[in-house]
This record gives sequence, structure tokens and C-alpha cells, in this order.
Amino acid sequence: LRLTASRSFSSSAQRYNDLNDRQAKAAAVGPHKHDASSPSLSVTAINHNGDISHQNKGTHGDWVLFHPVYAPEELKSVEVLHREATCFSDKLAANLVKFSKWGYDLVSGFRHKTIPPGTDMTLEQLREGGYVLNEKQWLQRILFLESIAGVPGMVAATLRHLQSLRLMRRDNGWIHTCLEEAENERMHLMTFMTLRNPSIFFRAMILGAQGVFYNLFFLSYLISPRACHRFVGHLEEEAVATYTKCIKEIEAGRVPEWSDLPAPQIAIDYWRLDPNSKLLDVIYAVRSDETSHRFVNHSLANLDVNTDVNPFALQEPDMHTKGKKIAFERPESEQYFKETRDMLRKVSADS
Amino acid sequence: LRLTASRSFSSSAQRYNDLNDRQAKAAAVGPHKHDASSPSLSVTAINHNGDISHQNKGTHGDWVLFHPVYAPEELKSVEVLHREATCFSDKLAANLVKFSKWGYDLVSGFRHKTIPPGTDMTLEQLREGGYVLNEKQWLQRILFLESIAGVPGMVAATLRHLQSLRLMRRDNGWIHTCLEEAENERMHLMTFMTLRNPSIFFRAMILGAQGVFYNLFFLSYLISPRACHRFVGHLEEEAVATYTKCIKEIEAGRVPEWSDLPAPQIAIDYWRLDPNSKLLDVIYAVRSDETSHRFVNHSLANLDVNTDVNPFALQEPDMHTKGKKIAFERPESEQYFKETRDMLRKVSADS
Ligand SMILES: [Fe+2]
Ligand SMILES: [Fe+2]
Ligand SMILES: [Fe+2]
Ligand SMILES: [Fe+2]
Repeated sequence: LRLTASRSFSSSAQRYNDLNDRQAKAAAVGPHKHDASSPSLSVTAINHNGDISHQNKGTHGDWVLFHPVYAPEELKSVEVLHREATCFSDKLAANLVKFSKWGYDLVSGFRHKTIPPGTDMTLEQLREGGYVLNEKQWLQRILFLESIAGVPGMVAATLRHLQSLRLMRRDNGWIHTCLEEAENERMHLMTFMTLRNPSIFFRAMILGAQGVFYNLFFLSYLISPRACHRFVGHLEEEAVATYTKCIKEIEAGRVPEWSDLPAPQIAIDYWRLDPNSKLLDVIYAVRSDETSHRFVNHSLANLDVNTDVNPFALQEPDMHTKGKKIAFERPESEQYFKETRDMLRKVSADS
Repeated sequence: LRLTASRSFSSSAQRYNDLNDRQAKAAAVGPHKHDASSPSLSVTAINHNGDISHQNKGTHGDWVLFHPVYAPEELKSVEVLHREATCFSDKLAANLVKFSKWGYDLVSGFRHKTIPPGTDMTLEQLREGGYVLNEKQWLQRILFLESIAGVPGMVAATLRHLQSLRLMRRDNGWIHTCLEEAENERMHLMTFMTLRNPSIFFRAMILGAQGVFYNLFFLSYLISPRACHRFVGHLEEEAVATYTKCIKEIEAGRVPEWSDLPAPQIAIDYWRLDPNSKLLDVIYAVRSDETSHRFVNHSLANLDVNTDVNPFALQEPDMHTKGKKIAFERPESEQYFKETRDMLRKVSADS
């Protein structure tokens, strides 16, 4: 409970400073007017494709964990970063991500062709030549990646939960960060899903990929949680790079179908966006989320997974840190945790 | 976020009504002074056996989901109830619980012998004759049951999460209730664990039981989520009965070792108990939690798991309902959800 509150304040201090106590509370924990607008308990599956973004259709539930809320400068302070592996298991994790990416690009027919400088090709020609993705290809790429990205956090949370149960010892606060990541990825998927109803073939591919990946990741996490968090760290590097590319393309006018598309309602609710936000704003928020995952997972992989406290259990650094730094080394994590604890203790003593 | 807030208000309205706005906020979402008292990031496993309940040792993290907080009358309004099965899968679920209980009693050497009326046996004689459990037997029974009880919620949450990812459709708010249940059970275990450091043999038994139960429940939930929630509903009936028996025994002075034992610190933090609370107060709170699980799982088992919204996503009824009613039938759930939604909409419109 406290976690949520302090994290919200951390990543959106600018927003809340302008509000009075009551407004701040409403923004942080208050109900949204449209949250309870489902007319009936029964929501058919068909309602969930597209209609969910309209009020009074589908369910606008606000039963999510932590809502990330970003200040405008935070959204822009994200850099594409890569961590160089040194030890064996880190190299293995990094290469597994490279290999998976190569495999996915192959299967999906994606080619990394650079646009010839000074070209006079039209957008249509660029698309036909395989230089740029069209909006359907972007969406397909995003949907696939997000449906996979929701798996690791849930596996990690499950296995840490089960370990806490069977060893009868406390978890040191890792479970919630993992659950938040899993839910956050699922919200990405739910957001982009509103843009399109995927084909049976595409759905079958996702189903198969999940079956394989869930089981592989489950077994790997049993063997080496540290290497698994490193793997996710590298996966998130790719996610940040992909969304950065996507943002550039939209801003360069090369995905005109998305230039003026309004943000889906579910995204406005989740990231507390302005009601007039565009899809581009949503993608900026998603990229910031991926940056958090990159930072958090690489930092966790620098810790002792069995005995160290999760340094982000109480609060996470904001995007000015996470966007420019690939991870905390272990001593940095320790210092960060101490500082957060002292700060919260002080707040608590003052109130 | 909103969920937590409104649930807190629901199950402890009496407490919060006496507080002003600021106090209520602090009680609901504010930091605890002792929450951030870990002196270092590194917490060794050894610290977790017992020491965790003392301040400045171990970690007092407040990174849990929903904290149940109960008013005194709620704690007393719990009845031992049983739902009669009618259809085949309900009967199967009920009998599986009966069978598991029988098997566990057999393995643990537990006999249901009634104390002869008007007996003049001393407590020692009653214990030796197998009429009453001693405090070690009570603890063993509780630890085993709690380490198993944390599994179903996590499995249900995982499978609903994965389904949402692979079918790319919303979950309708079930995941969080399942996660809360899993965490709540784990907190029960962490609480009772502070009373004793179990033997290697007992730990091995728990390890084996979890391995079998996790996989069986996972497969069963893939086949029939409805039957699984029913199974958990019956399991929780047993939990309520067990804790009710335990409370009676303590109050009758037949577990003298526990009569005056103070509540572990972790329990005081989690249920927001008075600092001078006793273990008995903790067991009352735990019994209320089990009553919630009984009610919620039986109610969920009365719904269509694929298309119905979780009626408890926004708020749960308080113990005066959950303690005396085994479950909501589907129309009752629908009505409850509508009422909650309208109430929250009104609150939101007024503020
Ligand atoms: Fe994502
Ligand atoms: Fe991510
Ligand atoms: Fe329990
Ligand atoms: Fe329970």
C-alpha cells in the first residue's frame, strides 16, 4: 500500500506538487469517474476487441497495481543503452536475446535496411522496398513482443512466492516488483490490442510462443534467477530500442496512420494521461515503462537473489536516472535503499 | 490503487470513521515508522527465523498488497459453514477436500476424539490420550496448511494472466483477488513461522507436498477453473473450522503456552493491530481472512469464469456478510457489483 503511494510520488513529483492534499490523494488513490461504468457483470469476449476503449461498453476496471505516471521531461530523458556482458552467464543471457531477436526477425520477415541517404522514394516505395514498416507491421511486432514480455515477471513472482512458502522465509520485497512488471506488460498488450483484431494465424503463433517460452523461462528461473533477470534486462534494452525507433518513425511522418490517432481510453486511465492524448503519447509512456524494466532487471541481476532486499521495494528512481543509467551496481543499490528508507522514515516522523 | 483504498474503507469503516481525513489517509496508505528499519540490504536467511519479529533486525517491508483491517465485531461474526454440493464437479471438489483432510490427519497422526463429558483428566492426560493437541501440534498443523494454502491463488493468477496475454483480452479483474489471496496466505505462514523453527523432516514434507500440489492444481485449473475455485472454497471451510477450534481451545485454557503470547510484529504490521495484541487476536484475524477466502472462492465458482467480471474487484462485503453467508449466487454477485459501482460513482461525483 505504502509502496504504491511513495512510488507514485516519486515518478510524478512535478504533477502532485501543484495539487493540494485532497487532489493529490484523489490523483494517487481516488476513483476515476469512468472506472465503474460497466452496465453488467457479464462482459462477452467479443466486447473486448476495440469496444473496451469506449465508455459504457466493456469494463473500465481500476484494479491494477502501481500506475506509472510520468512528467513530460521524464518521457524525453530515455536513452538507448546496452550493458556489456563480462561473466559467462551474462554473455549467455545477452546472446540468447540476440538469437531470439534474430529468430523473430527471420520468421516475421523483418529486414534491417537503412534508408539510402538523400533518397526520393515515396513512403509507399519505402514500404514496398522493406525500408520502413507499415502500421500493421509495427502493431504485429509490438503485440508479439508484449505478449511474451508479460511472462517473465509472473514466473519470477510465482517462483519466489513458492520458495517463500516452502522454505518458510520472507521474500525481501522482490515479488511485488515482479508482479508490477508482469501487469505493466499486460497493460501494454491490452492497450495495443484495442488497435486491431489479430488474425487466427497470428493468435496461434502467440499461443505457441507462450507455451514454449513460459516453460523454458520457468525452468531457467529455477536454475539461475540471476541469469534470468539479466536476460530480461537485455530483452528490455531491445524493447526500448524498438519503441525509440517507432517514436522516431511516427515523428518523421513515416507512420501516417498513427500520426493523429487518439490514445485508447485504457491507456488514458492507466497512465493518467490527458484525455486528448495521442497514441504517440502512449508510446512515450510505454517506452518509459520498458526503461524501468531494463534498469530494474539489470540491477536485480547485480544482487544476491537469495539474501538481498529488493532495493526498489520502497521506491524506484525516476526516469532521469533510469533513462540514462543501465543499472545500479550492488553498492549503489544498497545506498539507494538506505537513502529511501531514511527519507521515508523522516516523512513518517514529520507527519 | 483504488481497489485497495475502497476495500480498506469497506472492511474497517468503523475505524476510519473516527479519524480525520489526514489520519485516515495515513492509516490507509501511509508509511509505518518501523517499516523501513532494516539496517542493510543484505538479510541473511538465518535472520528470518524468529528475529524478524524484532525491530531493527530483519526487514519490516510494507510492500504488501491489500491489508485486511477488521473491526472487533467483525472478528466475532464468523460462523462455521458448509456448502452442500449438488452438481458432479462440485461433489468431486468437496470430496477431494475431504479425502485430502483424511490423508493429512492420517499422516500427521491426528485423531478426532471428543473429550468425555464430565471428565476429570488433567491437560497433560488429555494431551497424552490424544484428546487435545499441544501447542507444537497446533503449530505444525497450521504451518502445513498455510504453506499449501498459498498455492491456489498464485496458480489462478498466473493462468488468468497468461490467458489474458495469449488471447489478448482483458481479465475482468480476477487476477488481483487471486494474488491478494495468495499473499494473504503467505503472510499467515510468515506470521506463524516466527513461533518456531521447523525440523528438517517437516520442511522436507512441505517441499514434497508443494511440488505435488502445485502441479496438480495447475493442471486442474487448466481443465476447470470453476471446480478449482469450488475446491478452494471447501478447503477454506476447513480452515475456518480449524481456526475456530483453535480459538475455542485457547479460550478454554487448553493451549496454555499460547494464552499470553504476544502477537508477532509482522502480524501487528499486516493487520494494523494494537501493539499490545496477543497471538489470540492474530488468530481471530487469520480466521476472518479464511472466511473471506471461503466466501470469495465459493462465489467465484458460481460465476462464468470466462465472461463474468469479478464482483469483488472494486470492493468486498464486510465480515458481517462473509461470516454468515457461504457465498453469493450469481444474481447476488451481479447486484452487489452494480451497487458497489454506483456507490463509488456517487463518491467520485461528490468529491
Ligand atoms: Fe512492454
Ligand atoms: Fe518491458
Ligand atoms: Fe491461511
Ligand atoms: Fe485461506
